[in-house]
Amino acid sequence: MTDLPVRIEITEEGPREGFQIEKGPIATADKIALIDALSAAHPPRMQIVSFVSPKLVPGWADAEAVAAGFTPRPGIAYTALWFNAQGLSRALAFRDRLSITGSITFAASEAFSRKNLNRGHAEQMAAQRALIATCRSAGVPVERIALQAAFGCNYAGDVEVAQAMAVLEDAMALAAEEGCAITKVTLADTMGWADPLHIERLVGAVRERWPNLAVALHLHDTRGLGIANALAGLRMGVAMFDAAVGGLGGCPFAGQPGAPGNIATEELVFLAHEMGIETGIDLDALLEAAALAERIVGRRLPSNLLHGGSLTRFRKAA
Amino acid sequence: MTDLPVRIEITEEGPREGFQIEKGPIATADKIALIDALSAAHPPRMQIVSFVSPKLVPGWADAEAVAAGFTPRPGIAYTALWFNAQGLSRALAFRDRLSITGSITFAASEAFSRKNLNRGHAEQMAAQRALIATCRSAGVPVERIALQAAFGCNYAGDVEVAQAMAVLEDAMALAAEEGCAITKVTLADTMGWADPLHIERLVGAVRERWPNLAVALHLHDTRGLGIANALAGLRMGVAMFDAAVGGLGGCPFAGQPGAPGNIATEELVFLAHEMGIETGIDLDALLEAAALAERIVGRRLPSNLLHGGSLTRFRKAA
Repeated sequence: MTDLPVRIEITEEGPREGFQIEKGPIATADKIALIDALSAAHPPRMQIVSFVSPKLVPGWADAEAVAAGFTPRPGIAYTALWFNAQGLSRALAFRDRLSITGSITFAASEAFSRKNLNRGHAEQMAAQRALIATCRSAGVPVERIALQAAFGCNYAGDVEVAQAMAVLEDAMALAAEEGCAITKVTLADTMGWADPLHIERLVGAVRERWPNLAVALHLHDTRGLGIANALAGLRMGVAMFDAAVGGLGGCPFAGQPGAPGNIATEELVFLAHEMGIETGIDLDALLEAAALAERIVGRRLPSNLLHGGSLTRFRKAA
Repeated sequence: MTDLPVRIEITEEGPREGFQIEKGPIATADKIALIDALSAAHPPRMQIVSFVSPKLVPGWADAEAVAAGFTPRPGIAYTALWFNAQGLSRALAFRDRLSITGSITFAASEAFSRKNLNRGHAEQMAAQRALIATCRSAGVPVERIALQAAFGCNYAGDVEVAQAMAVLEDAMALAAEEGCAITKVTLADTMGWADPLHIERLVGAVRERWPNLAVALHLHDTRGLGIANALAGLRMGVAMFDAAVGGLGGCPFAGQPGAPGNIATEELVFLAHEMGIETGIDLDALLEAAALAERIVGRRLPSNLLHGGSLTRFRKAA
C-alpha cells in the first residue's frame, strides 16, 4: 500500500466532455451554471469548453459565450480543448480567463484514430507536428501527450501494451524532435476496455520506460470497472485523473449510444477521501453540482454516489 | 498479485434480495422467469426465495409458489432465506429442490440490529441460540455466520474493525458452545460504507484470528465503490461473493429509498474474467437475465455493464 499517493489532482471534464453525447442542445446558461456550481467545489483543474468546428460539433457553437460567461474562481485552472490553429486562436482570445497549454493526441488503435481523429497514425503524426508548430508560434508550451483507446477499441479489439507503447514511442520521438518538454502522458480508456491488471501493466511499462513522466488516467465507466481501475492506478501511485461530474459524457465515436460515460468525479473523490487521499475538492458541493447536471440533461446519470449520497450527514448524525 | 484467487464462487441473490425494495408487487411468474433465466448462466449458487412472515414482507407471500415453480438445473445450489423455526419448516418442504443449510446472523452495529433484526445484540444472541437448536432438531447444519453492517451503519456511523471483531467473537463463541462447525463468515457492507482499505483491514483481522475460516463478501454499491471493494477483496484472496443481477436490491431498512443496490453480478463476473479469474458463469447469458430483470422492475437498473454491454461482440468482430 506504500505506493498510494498522499494527494491527487483531478481534472473535472464534465462541462466540456459531459454534454457531447446528449441529444438536445444544452443551453449556454446551463453550461455556465454548471461550471459555476463546479467551481464552488474547487477542483484544481476544470476543462470547460471545446473550440472545435461548429459544423462538426454543433453543441459547441457557443464556446465563446461560455468562455466569456462563467465566473472564474482563484485557484482553479480552467482549460479548453482544441485540435488545430483555428481552435487555438479562438482559445487564446480568452487567455486572461483560461489556462492555455498544448498537448498532442494519438490513438493506440489505427481504427479508432480514423474514426475519432479522422486520420490514420502516419497522418496524425504530421498533423501533430503542425499543431506543435502552431503552439510554438503562439508561445504555448506543449507538455502533454494524450493516448486514446490505450486499452482497447470497439473497432479493433484489445490493445496490447506493446501496441500502446509503440504509439507512445512515436509520440515521444516527435515531441523530442520538435523540442517539446513533455511532462505528462494521459492514458485514456476511451471505450471502457481496461481492467485493473491491464492498468498495472500499461502504467508499469510507461513508468519503466520514462521514469520522469507523470502518468494521468482518463477512465470511462462504460462497463462498470471505472472506479476499480482508478483504484489500480492509485495503487501504482498515479496521482492525476480526469473525471466528469455525475458520470456525464462518453465517447460519441465509440458506436455505443446509451453507454455510461466517464467515471463520476464524486465517486473518485469519495474513494480517495475514504482512503485518506486528499483531493482539495469539497465533496458535498460537488454532489450539488452533480444534481444540477442531472437536472440539466433530464435523465438519470450513472453515478451511484449521486443517488446513494455521501456519508457526511450520517456521520454528523451518528 | 499472488493472492488473487484462481476461481471465485458467486452467490446470485437477485431473485431473493433483488425485489425487496421495489414498490409494486412482482408477479410470481416474473420471479420464476428471472430465476430460470439466471439458471441459464449457471451460477454455482442462487438464493431464490425468502420464507419470512407475509405480514412483515408481503412481497414474499408467494414464497411457496416460487419454490415450487422454478426449474432446477443440475449443478446449481438453490438456497432460501429464513429467520426462525416457522421459516425453516416452510423451507424444508422443498428439500428436494433447495439446498438447506443454516446460518446465524448478527449486526455489527447495535442500532442496525434493532432496525433490521428487531433486537439488540444480547437478544439476538438468545434468538440465534434458539435458531441453532431449531436447525439441530431438523438435522440442518449451521455452518455460516453473517455479519451485517460490518463496515458502517446509517444509524450509528463508522463501524471500527475492533467493533466488528467483538461481535464476531461472540458469534463464534456461541457457535462453539452449541457445537456448530462454522466454515464461512460473510462480511456484509449492508449500507455501502466500505472502502478498499477498510475491506483489507477487516478481512485481514478475520483471517488472522480464524485462519481456517472462508471469508465471503456481501457488498452493496450504494456509493459507487462496490466493484473497487470487490477488487480489494480479490487481492486479499477472498473467493466468495454475493451479488445481484443488474445491481438489483438494496437494504429496505437503511433509510435510503432510491439508493443503488447490491453490486451487479455481471460487473463482478466481468471484473473476474478480465483479470483471468474463473467464475463458471456465462456472462452473456447473465446479461440477458439482467435485461429481463430491468424489464420486470420497469426502471433503469444501476449496472453500467448492462447498458455498456460486454466485450464479446467487439472481440468477435475485431
